[in-house]
Amino acid sequence: MKHFGNRVEDLKIAYIGGGSRGWAWGLMSDLSQSKEISGDVYLYDIDFQAAKDNETIGNKFGDNFKYKAVLTIKEALLGADFVIISILPGTFDEMESDVHAPEKYGIYQSVGDSTGPGGLIRALRTMPMYVEIAERIKEYSPEAWVINYTNPMALCVATLYKVFPRIKAFGCCHEVFGTQKVLCHMLDEMGVAKKPDRHELATTPVGINHFTWLTSAYYKNTDLFPLYKEFVKAHKQEGIFKADQNWMNNFFSSAEMVKFELFEKFGVIAAAGDRHLAEFCPGSWFLESPDVANSWKFNLTPVSWRKEDLLTRKETSRKIVSGEINFEYKPTGEEGVNQICALLGLSDMVTNVNLPNQGQIENIPLGTIVETNAIFSGNSVVPVHSGKIPENVYSIMATAVYNQNNILNGFFNKDMDLLFNAFVTDRLTDKLSLADARELFHTMLKNTSKYLPDWIVRTVV
Amino acid sequence: MKHFGNRVEDLKIAYIGGGSRGWAWGLMSDLSQSKEISGDVYLYDIDFQAAKDNETIGNKFGDNFKYKAVLTIKEALLGADFVIISILPGTFDEMESDVHAPEKYGIYQSVGDSTGPGGLIRALRTMPMYVEIAERIKEYSPEAWVINYTNPMALCVATLYKVFPRIKAFGCCHEVFGTQKVLCHMLDEMGVAKKPDRHELATTPVGINHFTWLTSAYYKNTDLFPLYKEFVKAHKQEGIFKADQNWMNNFFSSAEMVKFELFEKFGVIAAAGDRHLAEFCPGSWFLESPDVANSWKFNLTPVSWRKEDLLTRKETSRKIVSGEINFEYKPTGEEGVNQICALLGLSDMVTNVNLPNQGQIENIPLGTIVETNAIFSGNSVVPVHSGKIPENVYSIMATAVYNQNNILNGFFNKDMDLLFNAFVTDRLTDKLSLADARELFHTMLKNTSKYLPDWIVRTVV
Amino acid sequence: MKHFGNRVEDLKIAYIGGGSRGWAWGLMSDLSQSKEISGDVYLYDIDFQAAKDNETIGNKFGDNFKYKAVLTIKEALLGADFVIISILPGTFDEMESDVHAPEKYGIYQSVGDSTGPGGLIRALRTMPMYVEIAERIKEYSPEAWVINYTNPMALCVATLYKVFPRIKAFGCCHEVFGTQKVLCHMLDEMGVAKKPDRHELATTPVGINHFTWLTSAYYKNTDLFPLYKEFVKAHKQEGIFKADQNWMNNFFSSAEMVKFELFEKFGVIAAAGDRHLAEFCPGSWFLESPDVANSWKFNLTPVSWRKEDLLTRKETSRKIVSGEINFEYKPTGEEGVNQICALLGLSDMVTNVNLPNQGQIENIPLGTIVETNAIFSGNSVVPVHSGKIPENVYSIMATAVYNQNNILNGFFNKDMDLLFNAFVTDRLTDKLSLADARELFHTMLKNTSKYLPDWIVRTVV
Amino acid sequence: MKHFGNRVEDLKIAYIGGGSRGWAWGLMSDLSQSKEISGDVYLYDIDFQAAKDNETIGNKFGDNFKYKAVLTIKEALLGADFVIISILPGTFDEMESDVHAPEKYGIYQSVGDSTGPGGLIRALRTMPMYVEIAERIKEYSPEAWVINYTNPMALCVATLYKVFPRIKAFGCCHEVFGTQKVLCHMLDEMGVAKKPDRHELATTPVGINHFTWLTSAYYKNTDLFPLYKEFVKAHKQEGIFKADQNWMNNFFSSAEMVKFELFEKFGVIAAAGDRHLAEFCPGSWFLESPDVANSWKFNLTPVSWRKEDLLTRKETSRKIVSGEINFEYKPTGEEGVNQICALLGLSDMVTNVNLPNQGQIENIPLGTIVETNAIFSGNSVVPVHSGKIPENVYSIMATAVYNQNNILNGFFNKDMDLLFNAFVTDRLTDKLSLADARELFHTMLKNTSKYLPDWIVRTVV
Repeated sequence: MKHFGNRVEDLKIAYIGGGSRGWAWGLMSDLSQSKEISGDVYLYDIDFQAAKDNETIGNKFGDNFKYKAVLTIKEALLGADFVIISILPGTFDEMESDVHAPEKYGIYQSVGDSTGPGGLIRALRTMPMYVEIAERIKEYSPEAWVINYTNPMALCVATLYKVFPRIKAFGCCHEVFGTQKVLCHMLDEMGVAKKPDRHELATTPVGINHFTWLTSAYYKNTDLFPLYKEFVKAHKQEGIFKADQNWMNNFFSSAEMVKFELFEKFGVIAAAGDRHLAEFCPGSWFLESPDVANSWKFNLTPVSWRKEDLLTRKETSRKIVSGEINFEYKPTGEEGVNQICALLGLSDMVTNVNLPNQGQIENIPLGTIVETNAIFSGNSVVPVHSGKIPENVYSIMATAVYNQNNILNGFFNKDMDLLFNAFVTDRLTDKLSLADARELFHTMLKNTSKYLPDWIVRTVV
Repeated sequence: MKHFGNRVEDLKIAYIGGGSRGWAWGLMSDLSQSKEISGDVYLYDIDFQAAKDNETIGNKFGDNFKYKAVLTIKEALLGADFVIISILPGTFDEMESDVHAPEKYGIYQSVGDSTGPGGLIRALRTMPMYVEIAERIKEYSPEAWVINYTNPMALCVATLYKVFPRIKAFGCCHEVFGTQKVLCHMLDEMGVAKKPDRHELATTPVGINHFTWLTSAYYKNTDLFPLYKEFVKAHKQEGIFKADQNWMNNFFSSAEMVKFELFEKFGVIAAAGDRHLAEFCPGSWFLESPDVANSWKFNLTPVSWRKEDLLTRKETSRKIVSGEINFEYKPTGEEGVNQICALLGLSDMVTNVNLPNQGQIENIPLGTIVETNAIFSGNSVVPVHSGKIPENVYSIMATAVYNQNNILNGFFNKDMDLLFNAFVTDRLTDKLSLADARELFHTMLKNTSKYLPDWIVRTVV
Repeated sequence: MKHFGNRVEDLKIAYIGGGSRGWAWGLMSDLSQSKEISGDVYLYDIDFQAAKDNETIGNKFGDNFKYKAVLTIKEALLGADFVIISILPGTFDEMESDVHAPEKYGIYQSVGDSTGPGGLIRALRTMPMYVEIAERIKEYSPEAWVINYTNPMALCVATLYKVFPRIKAFGCCHEVFGTQKVLCHMLDEMGVAKKPDRHELATTPVGINHFTWLTSAYYKNTDLFPLYKEFVKAHKQEGIFKADQNWMNNFFSSAEMVKFELFEKFGVIAAAGDRHLAEFCPGSWFLESPDVANSWKFNLTPVSWRKEDLLTRKETSRKIVSGEINFEYKPTGEEGVNQICALLGLSDMVTNVNLPNQGQIENIPLGTIVETNAIFSGNSVVPVHSGKIPENVYSIMATAVYNQNNILNGFFNKDMDLLFNAFVTDRLTDKLSLADARELFHTMLKNTSKYLPDWIVRTVV
Repeated sequence: MKHFGNRVEDLKIAYIGGGSRGWAWGLMSDLSQSKEISGDVYLYDIDFQAAKDNETIGNKFGDNFKYKAVLTIKEALLGADFVIISILPGTFDEMESDVHAPEKYGIYQSVGDSTGPGGLIRALRTMPMYVEIAERIKEYSPEAWVINYTNPMALCVATLYKVFPRIKAFGCCHEVFGTQKVLCHMLDEMGVAKKPDRHELATTPVGINHFTWLTSAYYKNTDLFPLYKEFVKAHKQEGIFKADQNWMNNFFSSAEMVKFELFEKFGVIAAAGDRHLAEFCPGSWFLESPDVANSWKFNLTPVSWRKEDLLTRKETSRKIVSGEINFEYKPTGEEGVNQICALLGLSDMVTNVNLPNQGQIENIPLGTIVETNAIFSGNSVVPVHSGKIPENVYSIMATAVYNQNNILNGFFNKDMDLLFNAFVTDRLTDKLSLADARELFHTMLKNTSKYLPDWIVRTVV
């Protein structure tokens, strides 16, 4: 890597999960538009052909970055300045179990990748992969900045730090952006500002990934809380419809009614999509049944849809590779490229990221992976001191906070009791009797056993 | 009060709720046996006749203490050295609503006075009384030591400190003793010690009242955890039966199966009666239905039983007053009198009490009323530094911890949203849809409205 | 105040100490260059004529801001959006005692306005003024942002928060900028970058005002610590000479040898002028005598110089008012105007400020006024989570940290013992015997008694 | 070890430094009086003959304990239930340098074994020995309880925990007892109680060893602070003379004038001997010169006296061994034997000990070795939650607190800069210029170099 004034050349970026047909395309698209940086992107994926296809696609995007699919993670990481991790842990078959196996027991999940029974089981098959990745980063590129996009976000980042405590890693998620867009929509509707951009807002997010809250929000120096109160009052019955700008997730919309309900209940602005928020609340509130979810105007995303969507994306990939169609450039609205530029010292930025708690949230245990704003500047990411989780919110959030640590410790200490304890105290599963919970836990582990460490597998045979 | 070597004379004790036909008789009995202290006990009760009857009964007990029923709280408190508070907030009619109204919604409670919907509503009618009591103590006996026995323990003590931060108050509960007796039973059964006394154990309790845990336990220098593990394994299917020594609560026994289950799950010793422990866990575990409770070998205590029992005790009172029968002396096993002696500097003692958290439990917010050991000595109660709530336990306990503060703040800030939030995030009520929860909350408030402050009553009309 | 897109008009700024012939001229100069904001500046000063002269001078600067001297603080504050405080507490006669009275006891001070005997006594006459100012802000402009420039910085800001806890106040100081300029000088000298601007650096300041440290420093993504180590090694014997750009403090230069010595000792970059740094260290190190100070290539600033300089500035003022000479525009390099713009939501910025510690420095007691970076954006100043004071530095810093609180508590609790304790444990005065210390304390109080509250005066008669 | 009801037999105690002619005789004397415990004491000393002599002496004491001098530390430790460490690190020649070398620079020390230049240098030669001891305990008796009596107490205990974090070690010191005796003397003099025993007091000590403070003190339920205030007022000019009961340290008396001065200054009761207290204060206060010390009515203990005293004790030893004289039994007033009994579960006790801070003192960094009360019971020592170091005291104490950690880290990280930093920021040495401080540091290291690790020695050649 070389600096030339305000340009940096010869960057090396390693992309783990580089065969991705979602995040990877977005990143390549954003990178191609950067005038400040150039270099090489090494694509590593357990599906080498997928990485190879992305190499072809990436190299169509322009000249500043060259793409190269590699066969080993070592080739990707060696000497990398940045590492991007965005993988699918297992296949959608395992995810099908994560999401749908609990339905037989009356437990419904709208996403199933962060919390709840699905999030826990997904974590257990993802963590061995992250142990491996962290060890390789420690070996081949210990000074690289590592950006994680994979879910369950908190446990992925936690695993990286557990294995390699000096890693320079953080996790990025766009869910807060979505809520900032709701606020922009509000400002426009109320005539305060004409189609403002979310970057014009100053917000204070606190929480854990996908259960994050804004404890303050300003547009210029206007406090948005009184406006939001009025806005929620006006729309809580029917919800709102807003055009979502991000082509990457336009299938997953909601009418924001969960968000509005939570504001009325807690007085702070829930800052994630409704589908995620619902999964952290008591199951009876928004996920008692598919009908209840629909009454709050959001859908449970069936894994069958994900499978079909994957086929479509594979077909799209084939067509782009073959030249039948062209990739359509659109800015993704993601911030990865800007973060890279900031870390290179080209310009500062403040945005929300997932990092170990050093005290940036006062009332969450130190070390827990939390989401707050941080300042990105030359080779440094410094979290903003963001105060406390409001105590009323904590009465439901605490379970997920402590279970993050329980799952982490259960996994690393090989303690099945602790893992089951996390499973059964979760706000979605706690409706089960202990006997039913044991049965479901066992079934779900069995369904993902191909990806589990031996010591867990032995307990489910 | 005067010290004569190892004796103290002319003590003045104020008993608020002095017409009690349970705790009061116990205390009078214990006081009569003390050779170290003597003086006067002023009995104040809103039922003056009950206090008057206890005056008669007390004065039959012996010479060292004189009993006097008084018409005003001022007479009781003025110049008191000690204040004992043990009241029934409202009547059993209100308690009937607390315990049984939720049953129509499928929510079952075994006690209903500490947590859950019953505990919350009981708190709301108790706190105005405690505001009044705290203000009078501040006015008439600010230097007195105040011992609380009323439930909900944590919120009673919290209210005293909120109104009069310099109060010298603590709350006492015998539930930990019961678990210590289980350990003694175990030592005897296993042949380690012949009928040991619970005072021979050294235990470290941490938690909140009625959801307290022993994180260490020794008999002489023998670690009891390995023994308990074996003991639980042997008895978890059928539970145990042990003779309960305390005449004051011998109707409320269990086979300790909840306790054993929680040990297997969390690895620490739950230290309260099963009926209390069950109420802090997810409702599906032990309280899904009366049958489920019975399968864990404990009963839901119906308020109708309490009503009948009260009639019996009234009749007993009448007979003792009239001289038809004599009060039968038995040591209660309670520690109130010993604590008084210790605070007078006559002898030190270590026991568990409820106090504001100054850091004695590291991971519970400061100011929360917590239960740990404390050293009692001349005019001082100093909590023992007791470490952390185990993180796995915290995944269920946290809701109750934060809701203690939410109820306190909701009450003092007149914030109905916060109170409802506490109601609906509780581990027993969270099975309700938000709509059902609102309906039940409203009904329960209505049923106790005679004792609520105006600002709450206005919301339920 | 009205927003028009990226402009704000009709701002009202109150300037307390508006007769200042230093800071006020700088601010007026900077304000005149702003294209984003306009409005009125109300100048209040106990020397009304000085304010009146500044009104004349200010109105020569341009059109965007109108200046108006007012006779009462109420007129200045009522409805103000921003309040700037920059006063001289007492006169240079009192400061003469602060700085020079201790010299008879062998205690030398290079500045005498922040710490040491001079800083303490200055605090005692400043705090009553700040009590008054805080009360008026609470009354007339409770929503205004308040920027303090007066020393002793920490105790001025602490007093504002003590009197009016909800105040939106912070303290600004340019000493960190000076150290950033040293780093820029280094980058230029070492050929890493050609005359870089300090805004291109990313640094992490931690500490208390005038005893602040950089625990990290980057230029682009280059770590400056290894470079600084080399630089210090090369220059520690002779120091460096660098052209100081800021016309406001060009009399106070040093060769940075104290800074270099402290780096060698502690391994972190001391970030204030040498004259300030020296006063927080044991007196024997750099301030044993004027000669010792000179051997470290800095001067003790005599108050006689300040008196002469004031005469010169008064004469300059007269000439500008009369039109004999024109004020020469130069950007001051101060950040007040940028901060105002950021708080109006016009653009974000990160800079170092003095704020109550909410945890942004982990190992300084909560509530202490500390200096760290903060993010300024629409109506919000949020401190950056800045980690710990290095433990080795803390072995000298702690005395000043705790004495900040001791002076604050001594003043507000009217506790002369506590004030004397702070005096006598200070790192400069602790060389005195207790008897000598008492005598000096008494003398210094007497010399400033005109400005002290009665309860202190009574102790010195 | 075997329990028989309230007796324990077959204890194995290892005594490291078992040739001691002070502490060892005291312990043997106390052990001989115990009716509850019996067993074997293994005496290990680098001076084997001294241990052998103590074997002879010990076996004269009675039957319950057998004494045996051993040639290797392994023999002493293997299977030990308790380990007692009381060694002289180096010889009095090194101590002569510790205490007297600084005098040439005008730095006077009354003891020179805990803090100040002497304490630091003594720590550096003691820590390698404690590294070795800790490793052997880890190897041979990891479950033993370890009692340390050697100074510098804090760094000895800190080293044990650093090397073997799971060690069950604590440090004991009788200095607090001495202050409790002053309070008893006061009670007697004031006619409150006739010759009360210090065990009748309830006190709350907080601090670091030899700079400990009582923040509360009661006799029965009488608050001793108002009495002490009166007492100090009456005696501050002349001090007091009280008969010291402890034969082990009757040469080291004072008139308590330092203690009284510190009470007047800080409002809390300093709880160590004046000679120790003085060394933690700024040198100008009590140790400016021998005359100043004498004016406060205490002496600097010359090491020549210690050398002579050692000869006397050697001669005494010879005579006892040969049977010329008999050892005279006196209870030492030390608590070692009682602590052993408590840890065996025979009876509880509360006393002050030195332990790593887990939060028992709220405002001292976690992990620092602090002195507070703790409850001793079966196989457990649990510190009492003791609140905060008063902030006014902290303004001088903090330097010693942070330097404890700086010395520990400097030693284990082999960081001479950090060690010198601790040396030069100390409250006694900070009067030196940096150049003089370097010279003295170098000289003192040289004088003790025989006992220093190589990496330090290399810096002083």
